[in-house]
Amino acid sequence: MELLARARVLEAEGRDIVHLEIGEPDFPVPRAVAEAGVRAIQRGATQYTPAAGLPELRRAVAGHYRRRHGATIAPERIFITPGASGALLLALGATLNAGEEVVLPDPGYPCYRNLARLFGAKPCAVPLDATDGFRVAWPLLEHHWTEQTFAAVLASPANPTGAILSPGDLAEIHAGVAAKGGALICDEIYQGLEYPGDNRRAASAVQWDGTFVVNGFSKYFGMTGWRVGWLVAPEAHCETVERLAQNLFIAAPTPSQYAALAALTDPAVAEELETRRTEFQRRRDFLLRKLRALGFVIPADPRGAFYIYADCSRFTDDSRRFALAALEEAGVAFTPGEDFGETSSSRYVRFAYTTGLARLEEGMARLEKWLERQRT
Amino acid sequence: MELLARARVLEAEGRDIVHLEIGEPDFPVPRAVAEAGVRAIQRGATQYTPAAGLPELRRAVAGHYRRRHGATIAPERIFITPGASGALLLALGATLNAGEEVVLPDPGYPCYRNLARLFGAKPCAVPLDATDGFRVAWPLLEHHWTEQTFAAVLASPANPTGAILSPGDLAEIHAGVAAKGGALICDEIYQGLEYPGDNRRAASAVQWDGTFVVNGFSKYFGMTGWRVGWLVAPEAHCETVERLAQNLFIAAPTPSQYAALAALTDPAVAEELETRRTEFQRRRDFLLRKLRALGFVIPADPRGAFYIYADCSRFTDDSRRFALAALEEAGVAFTPGEDFGETSSSRYVRFAYTTGLARLEEGMARLEKWLERQRT
Repeated sequence: MELLARARVLEAEGRDIVHLEIGEPDFPVPRAVAEAGVRAIQRGATQYTPAAGLPELRRAVAGHYRRRHGATIAPERIFITPGASGALLLALGATLNAGEEVVLPDPGYPCYRNLARLFGAKPCAVPLDATDGFRVAWPLLEHHWTEQTFAAVLASPANPTGAILSPGDLAEIHAGVAAKGGALICDEIYQGLEYPGDNRRAASAVQWDGTFVVNGFSKYFGMTGWRVGWLVAPEAHCETVERLAQNLFIAAPTPSQYAALAALTDPAVAEELETRRTEFQRRRDFLLRKLRALGFVIPADPRGAFYIYADCSRFTDDSRRFALAALEEAGVAFTPGEDFGETSSSRYVRFAYTTGLARLEEGMARLEKWLERQRT
Repeated sequence: MELLARARVLEAEGRDIVHLEIGEPDFPVPRAVAEAGVRAIQRGATQYTPAAGLPELRRAVAGHYRRRHGATIAPERIFITPGASGALLLALGATLNAGEEVVLPDPGYPCYRNLARLFGAKPCAVPLDATDGFRVAWPLLEHHWTEQTFAAVLASPANPTGAILSPGDLAEIHAGVAAKGGALICDEIYQGLEYPGDNRRAASAVQWDGTFVVNGFSKYFGMTGWRVGWLVAPEAHCETVERLAQNLFIAAPTPSQYAALAALTDPAVAEELETRRTEFQRRRDFLLRKLRALGFVIPADPRGAFYIYADCSRFTDDSRRFALAALEEAGVAFTPGEDFGETSSSRYVRFAYTTGLARLEEGMARLEKWLERQRT
């Protein structure tokens, strides 16, 4: 945040900044999606929806799971929320109580620990290992599980690492958490944005009974400012989740829900999104190759989302200062590791490839020259 | 909720139901507002806004306070949220900690106590007196203030009572809460919907330093499904509130924020909203006269919002059963008091005048006949 603010000041002063810090896709919203939003407003569909969301959108999300994962999810278990943030809030609100602990992989999305604290719960960081591709596996979680632990929050694909949970690890984690009587919350907001060499897409935790699955339309569907997400809740929690949704939000925005319905049901949109995914993959391939060539250490290929979490210890032991200097001196913005946790975070920075190849090339050229100057 | 669900079932079976239970204005969104939303989508303004909201909307809200209340509020203290619900969540999240107490007038909006509990805080009900017009005054709050109390949440105009805080009571409450070192949260979502005999509008708590003021576009502006609200936060809390907003929501929906901007700045909208207020007043006057004639006891005229909280103890000692029977037998839906707290709630029901005069007349005619039949 400090870095983004500084980047805006520099831009206001006329500097050109290459933005590799932004967690928002740069593609415009697909035409059919925008048109559905416009039509909803024009026909006056701007009143509250039910707290759980438009019934037809809940059914469309169920259809999405059927098509993409072969999973049959009752629409009654699907809750439409104001962004994936809202879904996360519902999942945590339904599972956490003051004094309890929640295990969270580190590095990870900072909201998890901030929201856990808001509910009076205690976040417990589980350090991940870069040389193991930031893999999250049950023995690691179990090692940090205590008598007070009530839930685990995982992400796949993960921010900032781009790591994807393997189906085997997911199954073991599900079994392990269930045996402990805990709740498993999986944030799958980056699902769809996967670049596997083996053509296998990320597994979804929806196939496992009893898990909370967070997802939404902001990343793969590129609908950030519309603020629509969803939660798949275990059947036993649906009543609690619905009451929470009523209290926390009343409902997700109505025109946005109609736009989201088009995103899931219009075939032209599906095609466009796949084209975008291919473009993201090209960007990742370029950035990954280039960063490694510059001397950043990235032991395993990140396989999803639009981030590369890179070890910059060859250049610095203070990644925050490094990122601020790169911004000031090279005009390239990226995020210091401290935003994502404490595990060696001063040795890491996150690059986002949410800008086109030409800008990525420009950014890498600037970085190369700047690092060259540092060395001499 | 139970009642609304039953009403929907009866309607699906072909029954005609007069809805006096709905907390949503029945007017269509003003044309200029809808058009601004459409234009935002069409020009691609659908990306995230800053967490605190569109700068021009924050400035427009400040302008609203200047025009309507003669109050100068720095736009930096104004946070745009997903509905007033989001503003309430920010205010509670910024002030409450686990184990603390919050005093809440009873009857009141049920979300206050539900959200307080979510944060691990303890709601403490302050019973209000119908014969005193459900007045909230400092001596009453002070009586329930303990060593653990950290905040008071008030509403003006209030749901379900329609009561409005007098400027004198508001000043005393502000001074009292400040002297206790507590936080004052005022929910003003129904402001603008006021029907005073003396032509004085409700005072806003924004004039008092250190208060949190919750408001939004859903009620007076009639923009329910758009989900845009705002919070005015004390300067000392702005950093916390902004961080919370980032974690809880990321941002309010973008097209809706542009629509809200038109709601505040288009003169035709302002005129239309005043016409609607006059219509609400006509409805209140009719319903109030009619309910009293039927034997409901309403000692003081409700002066704001679109609700009448009526004592039905002449007919029943179980208002929940009474409301369900009126729905089944007379086809008139209204809300039992139990939804709003515990203070004599089994003796009260809430009527909402969010439907046109013709339907209000139909509802009252049905109720009159039904009550007649009960008596014989």
